[in-house]
Amino acid sequence: MSEKVVGILGGGQLGRMLAASASRLGVKVVILDVGDSGPAKQILAPTAEHLAHVDGSFADPQKIRELAEKVDVLTVEIEHVDVTTLEEIQDSASHLGLAIHPSPSTIHIIQDKYRQKLHLASTGSPVSEFANVDSDAGSILAAVEELGLPLMLKSRTLAYDGRGNFVIRHVSDIHQAVLALGDTPLYAEKWVPFSKEIAVMVVRTNDGDVRSYPVVETIHKDNICHLVFAPLRSCDPTLSQRARDIAEAAVKTFTGAGVFGVEMFLMEDGTIFINEIAPRPHNSGHYTIEACETSQYENHLRAILSLPLGSTALKVQSAVMLNLIGYSAYMDEIIAMTEAALTVPGASVHLYGKLECRKGRKMGHITVVADSDAQLRARLRPLLESLPLSSPQEVDLYAPISPTPGSGFSDPNPLVGIIMGSDSDLPVMLPAARILDHFKIPYELTIVSAHRTPDRLVEYARSASSRGLRTIIAGAGGAAHLPGMVASMSALPVIGVPVKGSSLDGVDSLHSILQMPRGIPVATVAINNSTNAGLLAVRILAAGMPALITAMDEYLKGLETEVMGKVSKLEEVGWEKYEVK
Amino acid sequence: MSEKVVGILGGGQLGRMLAASASRLGVKVVILDVGDSGPAKQILAPTAEHLAHVDGSFADPQKIRELAEKVDVLTVEIEHVDVTTLEEIQDSASHLGLAIHPSPSTIHIIQDKYRQKLHLASTGSPVSEFANVDSDAGSILAAVEELGLPLMLKSRTLAYDGRGNFVIRHVSDIHQAVLALGDTPLYAEKWVPFSKEIAVMVVRTNDGDVRSYPVVETIHKDNICHLVFAPLRSCDPTLSQRARDIAEAAVKTFTGAGVFGVEMFLMEDGTIFINEIAPRPHNSGHYTIEACETSQYENHLRAILSLPLGSTALKVQSAVMLNLIGYSAYMDEIIAMTEAALTVPGASVHLYGKLECRKGRKMGHITVVADSDAQLRARLRPLLESLPLSSPQEVDLYAPISPTPGSGFSDPNPLVGIIMGSDSDLPVMLPAARILDHFKIPYELTIVSAHRTPDRLVEYARSASSRGLRTIIAGAGGAAHLPGMVASMSALPVIGVPVKGSSLDGVDSLHSILQMPRGIPVATVAINNSTNAGLLAVRILAAGMPALITAMDEYLKGLETEVMGKVSKLEEVGWEKYEVK
Repeated sequence: MSEKVVGILGGGQLGRMLAASASRLGVKVVILDVGDSGPAKQILAPTAEHLAHVDGSFADPQKIRELAEKVDVLTVEIEHVDVTTLEEIQDSASHLGLAIHPSPSTIHIIQDKYRQKLHLASTGSPVSEFANVDSDAGSILAAVEELGLPLMLKSRTLAYDGRGNFVIRHVSDIHQAVLALGDTPLYAEKWVPFSKEIAVMVVRTNDGDVRSYPVVETIHKDNICHLVFAPLRSCDPTLSQRARDIAEAAVKTFTGAGVFGVEMFLMEDGTIFINEIAPRPHNSGHYTIEACETSQYENHLRAILSLPLGSTALKVQSAVMLNLIGYSAYMDEIIAMTEAALTVPGASVHLYGKLECRKGRKMGHITVVADSDAQLRARLRPLLESLPLSSPQEVDLYAPISPTPGSGFSDPNPLVGIIMGSDSDLPVMLPAARILDHFKIPYELTIVSAHRTPDRLVEYARSASSRGLRTIIAGAGGAAHLPGMVASMSALPVIGVPVKGSSLDGVDSLHSILQMPRGIPVATVAINNSTNAGLLAVRILAAGMPALITAMDEYLKGLETEVMGKVSKLEEVGWEKYEVK
Repeated sequence: MSEKVVGILGGGQLGRMLAASASRLGVKVVILDVGDSGPAKQILAPTAEHLAHVDGSFADPQKIRELAEKVDVLTVEIEHVDVTTLEEIQDSASHLGLAIHPSPSTIHIIQDKYRQKLHLASTGSPVSEFANVDSDAGSILAAVEELGLPLMLKSRTLAYDGRGNFVIRHVSDIHQAVLALGDTPLYAEKWVPFSKEIAVMVVRTNDGDVRSYPVVETIHKDNICHLVFAPLRSCDPTLSQRARDIAEAAVKTFTGAGVFGVEMFLMEDGTIFINEIAPRPHNSGHYTIEACETSQYENHLRAILSLPLGSTALKVQSAVMLNLIGYSAYMDEIIAMTEAALTVPGASVHLYGKLECRKGRKMGHITVVADSDAQLRARLRPLLESLPLSSPQEVDLYAPISPTPGSGFSDPNPLVGIIMGSDSDLPVMLPAARILDHFKIPYELTIVSAHRTPDRLVEYARSASSRGLRTIIAGAGGAAHLPGMVASMSALPVIGVPVKGSSLDGVDSLHSILQMPRGIPVATVAINNSTNAGLLAVRILAAGMPALITAMDEYLKGLETEVMGKVSKLEEVGWEKYEVK
């Protein structure tokens, strides 16, 4: 595949997962980090003298040079490396036949968060307002006056997982902030009251071609990444493409090859700001190992080795990553969480082989994949419950209990939408809900009137797919425009139920729903027969969830058994005494 | 997760993939094999003195004892180990706190193929006829007389990848057979004229609980596993369950924990024979790494460590594994094949880190996953073409070219079936085919008459799902029973197209198709509107193939653009001069 030897500055968990990918691809890797048996070095036993790992710091110029002499491509798993040395090596790199990815200038820009913000702002990426400040109260006060309160004060360098951040809520906090961060170079950011944090991994070739992974929602706890949900669900059908465009455009402005993690803020009004960018594989991309056609780690290697990039598409419907963060010096809590994961279908445990546990340390992660968001959140629940100090409220927040079948309330992660033009249609439409209850399929049920709530119709239909719905059952009577209008504004399959009104015997609604023009189909079922609409929805979902085929086969078998029971009874009692039920 | 240290007898590719799973789970592993840097040892750098690997043969009693003293659980990645030593260790194992999985008695039975056959036959597993033979011509002749010609003569021990097999086609071959295999213990098997080779991986707990993976089709070339397709597609809807039941029952008869590879022959008439069983992870289960919720390697570790078993379900729709077999001493051909894989979406390359290549040696494998069988085979094509000495005929056999859209012939791996009651319905049904061509969705098109070919109707409907179809479009006129009858005999979504006949304006077929009883839905579209049936099929497939949502959105945009063009034209030329097309 590639005879080139890759040197990685840093041998933590990101280096470990890079190393695992490299082994599968047959790519040789040498690690620079302190010690002999960190996470990455553990899973790479050098097969030759010249491939021996280097024991030393990625901030030590001499050790970096030692690594550079052993390899053909240098890369990083952490941006806090000695970039001056990398820049010096870069100057003589071409005649050494050595490549450095991403380029030292990229790392140079990114490792100073203020310089990074300046770069992003000057190249047209959306960032919130920010200002340079000196490490004294006067300068910070000036920033407060410029950007308002609360104000986010940040260390420019060596900050991660919330370390180096200080929130100034009142002018009186400034003194405390200077005490906390005064000995590091600082800058200030205008407070961003985001509604969600989202992220996109982007892989960049040395020529500047980029490919982005799906948009994910990231949830932080105590400033450390806690959960990552993929893909992002949203009522805004344009959001996903907008976020990917912004992330790709930003990554294009840098130089060198590799993956970049683009962390972003999503505002209530749909505006997106870039928070920060990591020039390497990223925690928000761990899920790609199990959930995408090519993982971020393999694509990083492909990019830095000038090999063709792999597909970034999801190969599963839904995925979540849960970080295993140390709670104390004891490993026991981590072990308990991994044991809980073993009983969860679709869960994959990754432990990083760190020999010591401590509070706030990333010890491993669990990725869960599923056929649907509702199944995913049901699978996530026991994992969240196994977290030390987890509260029921927090568990419900991220892994809401689906309503009990028959409860009469909509599921928060529905696959099917049942809508009707009027509450008077409810008795006719309820059997569809009962069928979905029977098959344990999460659904929502509501009223959308084409004629009386036309704006609601547009919003419902346009957002259905990006919210995660896979099919819609629409019931309507009379002029019965609802099913056809929804089908016109959504790419999902729409099932129409003609509701029988007081005149014309339902033929009016039947023709309205069925006789759609070429181009916009509505799957029409018999008049008032929402049972069949529910069953058709299950059959449709089975196209993407093979287990439903088995369930539907059993249902059909049940119908047969029922009729055969009546055959026997007719045989037994004779038709003169047989009572039709 | 588990503090127990696992010792593996054998450090080849299976040991390597076991080791990779163990690292992710944080399980410590010690390898026994010759040399310091075989495939498994390369990716396991011991983190402590007591975890150092053992340099020696898995057939060396002293080395096995050395390994046993270092670990808590012993397992094998190859069955040709010194089982006598394992049995001796087993006798004293309990007071050493040592477990051996699978049990030495299982390995003892399995490593002698004749003893294995006797065990399977005596415990009720279906095996073809076989007979003990001595290594002389007279005994072999007696077997020929008993079992007929051709006869498969096999070495009882140390045989794999076709080595140790000799086919006797004529009595005159017996002399040659004795020369070839006469120095090993032998047995004979009645010739099995199978139609397909299939396999099932089964994971067994120490208590005898079993879970099987999906049935796969295995294709051998020069007696070595070449391709593995998952899941198996078949016209026989009962096949998959029958094969899993047989495999599970057979594995239950052994003792000890771990995964077992059950290789089987499928006969033309649907009969299944077990060929042989491997007491360890197996080549036919490599695909589980990318395609299943839990890989065979992780489940082997879970089983031998008495941890809960993981889900064996597929998480993708379709997968294939291609072995990378050495063609010569040069690695170049292998590298060329892996490079071809880099341009194939959904392809994952696994190289085993073997330092020397030679003819017939397993150097690595490639797994490809896809949304459908047709996509899978299209992705497989460039890989097969990159094989040295591959012939176009062979490529077409396993990766058939899908017919060009509009060619008028059925795709060999269809997702949609278009059927009609009569050839006179063809003009009405063709637009559905055109739509599927437009969206590049593979389909088949044929005539199935409910009234004139009722048996064909049953066969078509009953086998549709197990052949890989995900939805059926059925057109019919008049009494129009076809759509409803197909829906009664298949769990797939059925789309009905009412075809307008010479009387009643199509209302007859419309009511026949639409007014299905509760329990059996048919998704009915407008009279003669098979365009919408095709579009509805695309929307249905999108439930399992998210990329189709985007394609359908573009189609809807196209409709809008078309109408907006007419708006402009009406504006431009005025309605007096406007010509309706």
